[in-house]
Amino acid sequence: MKFSIFGESHGPAIGVLLEDVPAGAALNMEEIAFEMGRRAPGKNALSTARKEADSPEVLSGVYNGFTTGAPLCAMIRNTDARSGDYSLLKRFPRPGHADYTAAARYGGFADMRGSGQFSGRLTAPLVFAGAVAKQLLARRGIFVGAHICSINGIKDTCLEDSPLFRSGGESLLRAAAHRELPVLDEGAGERMREAIAEAKRNGDSLGGVIECAATGLEAGIGEPGADSLESLISRNCFAVPGVKGIEFGAGFAFAEMRGSEANDPMEMKEGRVVMRSNNNGGISGGISTGAPLLFRAALRPTSSIAREQDTVDMERRADAKLVVPGRHDPCIVHRAVPAIEAAAALALLEAVQKLYGIRCI
Amino acid sequence: MKFSIFGESHGPAIGVLLEDVPAGAALNMEEIAFEMGRRAPGKNALSTARKEADSPEVLSGVYNGFTTGAPLCAMIRNTDARSGDYSLLKRFPRPGHADYTAAARYGGFADMRGSGQFSGRLTAPLVFAGAVAKQLLARRGIFVGAHICSINGIKDTCLEDSPLFRSGGESLLRAAAHRELPVLDEGAGERMREAIAEAKRNGDSLGGVIECAATGLEAGIGEPGADSLESLISRNCFAVPGVKGIEFGAGFAFAEMRGSEANDPMEMKEGRVVMRSNNNGGISGGISTGAPLLFRAALRPTSSIAREQDTVDMERRADAKLVVPGRHDPCIVHRAVPAIEAAAALALLEAVQKLYGIRCI
Amino acid sequence: MKFSIFGESHGPAIGVLLEDVPAGAALNMEEIAFEMGRRAPGKNALSTARKEADSPEVLSGVYNGFTTGAPLCAMIRNTDARSGDYSLLKRFPRPGHADYTAAARYGGFADMRGSGQFSGRLTAPLVFAGAVAKQLLARRGIFVGAHICSINGIKDTCLEDSPLFRSGGESLLRAAAHRELPVLDEGAGERMREAIAEAKRNGDSLGGVIECAATGLEAGIGEPGADSLESLISRNCFAVPGVKGIEFGAGFAFAEMRGSEANDPMEMKEGRVVMRSNNNGGISGGISTGAPLLFRAALRPTSSIAREQDTVDMERRADAKLVVPGRHDPCIVHRAVPAIEAAAALALLEAVQKLYGIRCI
Amino acid sequence: MKFSIFGESHGPAIGVLLEDVPAGAALNMEEIAFEMGRRAPGKNALSTARKEADSPEVLSGVYNGFTTGAPLCAMIRNTDARSGDYSLLKRFPRPGHADYTAAARYGGFADMRGSGQFSGRLTAPLVFAGAVAKQLLARRGIFVGAHICSINGIKDTCLEDSPLFRSGGESLLRAAAHRELPVLDEGAGERMREAIAEAKRNGDSLGGVIECAATGLEAGIGEPGADSLESLISRNCFAVPGVKGIEFGAGFAFAEMRGSEANDPMEMKEGRVVMRSNNNGGISGGISTGAPLLFRAALRPTSSIAREQDTVDMERRADAKLVVPGRHDPCIVHRAVPAIEAAAALALLEAVQKLYGIRCI
Repeated sequence: MKFSIFGESHGPAIGVLLEDVPAGAALNMEEIAFEMGRRAPGKNALSTARKEADSPEVLSGVYNGFTTGAPLCAMIRNTDARSGDYSLLKRFPRPGHADYTAAARYGGFADMRGSGQFSGRLTAPLVFAGAVAKQLLARRGIFVGAHICSINGIKDTCLEDSPLFRSGGESLLRAAAHRELPVLDEGAGERMREAIAEAKRNGDSLGGVIECAATGLEAGIGEPGADSLESLISRNCFAVPGVKGIEFGAGFAFAEMRGSEANDPMEMKEGRVVMRSNNNGGISGGISTGAPLLFRAALRPTSSIAREQDTVDMERRADAKLVVPGRHDPCIVHRAVPAIEAAAALALLEAVQKLYGIRCI
Repeated sequence: MKFSIFGESHGPAIGVLLEDVPAGAALNMEEIAFEMGRRAPGKNALSTARKEADSPEVLSGVYNGFTTGAPLCAMIRNTDARSGDYSLLKRFPRPGHADYTAAARYGGFADMRGSGQFSGRLTAPLVFAGAVAKQLLARRGIFVGAHICSINGIKDTCLEDSPLFRSGGESLLRAAAHRELPVLDEGAGERMREAIAEAKRNGDSLGGVIECAATGLEAGIGEPGADSLESLISRNCFAVPGVKGIEFGAGFAFAEMRGSEANDPMEMKEGRVVMRSNNNGGISGGISTGAPLLFRAALRPTSSIAREQDTVDMERRADAKLVVPGRHDPCIVHRAVPAIEAAAALALLEAVQKLYGIRCI
Repeated sequence: MKFSIFGESHGPAIGVLLEDVPAGAALNMEEIAFEMGRRAPGKNALSTARKEADSPEVLSGVYNGFTTGAPLCAMIRNTDARSGDYSLLKRFPRPGHADYTAAARYGGFADMRGSGQFSGRLTAPLVFAGAVAKQLLARRGIFVGAHICSINGIKDTCLEDSPLFRSGGESLLRAAAHRELPVLDEGAGERMREAIAEAKRNGDSLGGVIECAATGLEAGIGEPGADSLESLISRNCFAVPGVKGIEFGAGFAFAEMRGSEANDPMEMKEGRVVMRSNNNGGISGGISTGAPLLFRAALRPTSSIAREQDTVDMERRADAKLVVPGRHDPCIVHRAVPAIEAAAALALLEAVQKLYGIRCI
Repeated sequence: MKFSIFGESHGPAIGVLLEDVPAGAALNMEEIAFEMGRRAPGKNALSTARKEADSPEVLSGVYNGFTTGAPLCAMIRNTDARSGDYSLLKRFPRPGHADYTAAARYGGFADMRGSGQFSGRLTAPLVFAGAVAKQLLARRGIFVGAHICSINGIKDTCLEDSPLFRSGGESLLRAAAHRELPVLDEGAGERMREAIAEAKRNGDSLGGVIECAATGLEAGIGEPGADSLESLISRNCFAVPGVKGIEFGAGFAFAEMRGSEANDPMEMKEGRVVMRSNNNGGISGGISTGAPLLFRAALRPTSSIAREQDTVDMERRADAKLVVPGRHDPCIVHRAVPAIEAAAALALLEAVQKLYGIRCI
């Protein structure tokens, strides 16, 4: 299933086109709405005040609640867009934002109202697509979930350290998805909330790390080379605005390990091959090992902050100061959690469909 | 320019097919040989004793020293292959290696002699392809280079911390490429060498981090979404065996920064827009900023170690002990440096050609 | 520029997603409306009585009348859809139509109201995409036009036989585009009109041939192999419902020619290389020769006819008789003319952009 | 399974890279050799005197006679190449050949010895790829075969007119494949042979039509739009040098039929749906109907003829006369038959794998 995102933040609409959708899949629209609600802004003090209905209209590919097998296009109208806020940013590009690079790339023709196609709002159709992918994967027993791993250094419990997770339970992640901040440890969540509130008071913003897992994935999905599971997942994850790093299993910690520590010992357990540790994050040679697939994505702090920043005046070709007007998220890590899940689910579906075809998955 | 790697370590040959090659590019075969020599094994005590001629034969697409515009296929014969070494590994899969996942993926039909298509040897055609890409990029003033950032925690100087690099000089990386270990600080290189020798004595292996830079890249290359520069580069880098993490600019360190620290302030310098810092690694919104592109890739320690390891007996469906026979690299970080450069160069060429076409680049 | 069509005839909407659109192109919406009007039904007695507003809404990728460089999605609402007409066709598949194959392909889940994604209505977004492509090609002096070559054996003048066309004038085809039936010879058009009216009276339908030309195309666009100009154009043309054959230049007539007749002799004319004949239709080795590109596409008679036909009863697994209810086009050849132009224009743009990039075209 | 052809006629080698090959398929190398022998030149007076061993060396992806699932690269060395013959053609481009367009496309850098990548020799790797595809399709009961439909107007029996074929027998086409000229009616073959011999005596060449069929294809393979079966097959067929037209089922004859004649009536036969005629060539709405898939491809007469022709002198920018030196095929229709089969088989495999995945096919 290929996905193609379209739309600009303050244009008529945003959306996604899904191609190679299997026919006959019952789409649970409530689950899709739940996923989209997880990333929606305006729910509380932690997010921007912009309210988005974010209710997707399915334009094609679904009939009587089932996918028809035709391309599925879903569209979300842009309604609560106050474009006046953004008029000066062409002249004074915001540091850390794509104003300057967009001007270089699109020669001044990009629709940068509300940050245009660079807006975090574009994760809404991504989450829609991911929700469809997750339902298709679920038909093969594959579950994808994520939680905040850390915000500004405040750490949540790691999945690997959780006995519950190791015993196979995805219930941990399902529970996290219902919390205001999707964490495993509610105490850590409380401390994150305070840190976000404090950053907001200071006109500043925070970054963090998201940990994502896929369970129920059989061994043997993926391949070596540029279609490795890591390649497919990382490609999609870097489509989420603000993601600047990704690591699988032990990731960067591998760099200080020895092979004797890094290799996951294997053993027979009730006639099945299992890995005693999961340093490789469920992927070896680009192919799933059957252990839970585990990766972490690093997100930079939101670029839009309320403080005065040093920038340039593109007209006068001179230095300038800028206070970015408008609404800001002091932290988007929690809202990015379903986007990272979507990125992973779409990558896994691609790998699974390559092996089994769109008739079977 | 699309690249497609083929071959298995102990099959007849390995190679690469390049499509959409511009016509009329003078290929410098000495530079290609130099790049391939950088990754070649058997040069010293730091690498496997296997000797590879690794001299590619160009089968098509080059005539009288110039690219013809037809698909370019380059092949490297496998000669020094002692396949007897690997016969038991189907029954006793090596921990950390792809023996088990390959069996699951290819149903026992994979040619796993010498690790087959999972072998680090497959980076030879990748480096060939990258060397071609680097020559094409050089025609537009773009340079791609890398160095060992750390091995087992022993750190080289960072590019960002080097005044020479910030003043635009790629000479630093060119010099590193000629060292046995491609480092900026030769003292650090000496300590790495010792650590590798010690790991070898202990039958163990080490991982590390590679830092890669691209300079001379104009602002405005790339795009948001799944074709972002980060997406294209990460996809290719995870095709290099052993890579388990990647981060751009500050990467995972972003997670503990505030927006006011993370945003790169802009200023006018001699009529040109420059970023005062480069936390974003030269990419914003998936598009090049004009600052040096900077990323780091984490490599796990080599899977093949001389120590006894716990594995399974696939025949008897029982636990087993394994001492992997054959030749091992105690560390492949230094040999992976040109492979990471190749992965990045191919990604950048893809993005540049999308904008300017194969006639122009 | 990639195009992806979506939608089903009686679903909420149909549309097209364009990716890799150059930024800064002024879109002439009147020209787009003119193109779409050419294929719109309901204009006269020659077409179905269904009235479609067919006015596309651009959802993204255009701002202030210029393309932004972001993906361009255009949507057309389905309004005048009387779905009751089509309820029995799942049980009694229409001969010549896709009812039976769609059931096999999509397992009964296809939305076949109004023939779903098999409807000729899906050419509306194709024509939209083609109109954008034609405007982009025009910036390089390339023109794409077509006319009815024959309907039911009634022949229009051939382009090659027209001195006006050979002297470079695309005015012939521009004039044809404004006629009710897009022909060069209005007398032939009159006879076609009569034949169509007669077929309608008899509850029958007619097929025909469309001839398409591209002028202003420089020599050197395209390549041999599966990305030849013929490959790209034919792939797109067979996406137009009802097309069952395509031939370039002399096409099937080549089969009875000798090489000495078939080869186009070359000569120097005012310092430029020209072909004295154009049997190869402006393409040699998959690459444009600089002569006008010429091809013909054969369209089968409309499948939906008012007569009783032999079919099967899928429920009772028995033979059955069917009189297809609803509105029918006795001939869709004239309405397919702009669709064939669109298919060709999109293919040519693909080939041109491959060489020159999306910055330049 | 993707295929990518590489090589130039007189370069070191030609070949093909196959990706997404299922693992564990037993490759029958004798069948592959048989297919390649069918297109090999030098067998008799009907073909060029050039002798090619044409024995492919498999470089990767096959081990112990089974596909490994890794990319399969096969290479054929160019040995009997007398390049001296072709030295003048850069200055005096051959009419009907790609000399002129190649110069325009590749700026004079194309390796045009032996016509380079435009040579009919490039169909050797295509036939190799097709032979692999045919073996994979055979595992699902799908057979692809073709015969000469006509040469210079001399007609073979049509498949549709043969009672044997309609009763399902592919034996007709298997028998044809063993004849010197692959025809159904040996009398017609004799007349073709005479016509070819006569053309050769006159220093001229002949074109023709090939008819190709696929049997055993279940209903429901393919889809509407630019991935229709017609789109996939035509794209591949136009990669065969000299093909200038393609038609499915009644094809261009549809243009003079009425809907009441063109629609294939359906009936129940022993509980199965069958079409009473097969005007649509086994494809409706881009999807297979379950009836034999039938199409015809038109081939232009060989461009290289022994007669003097009018061309240009690219150096002096003046008119010139040319007698093409070297070896010529007076007719390549019979040698193109396995290439057309290959083109069709690769397209069908693509469509089947999309539905069922590379694990299953």
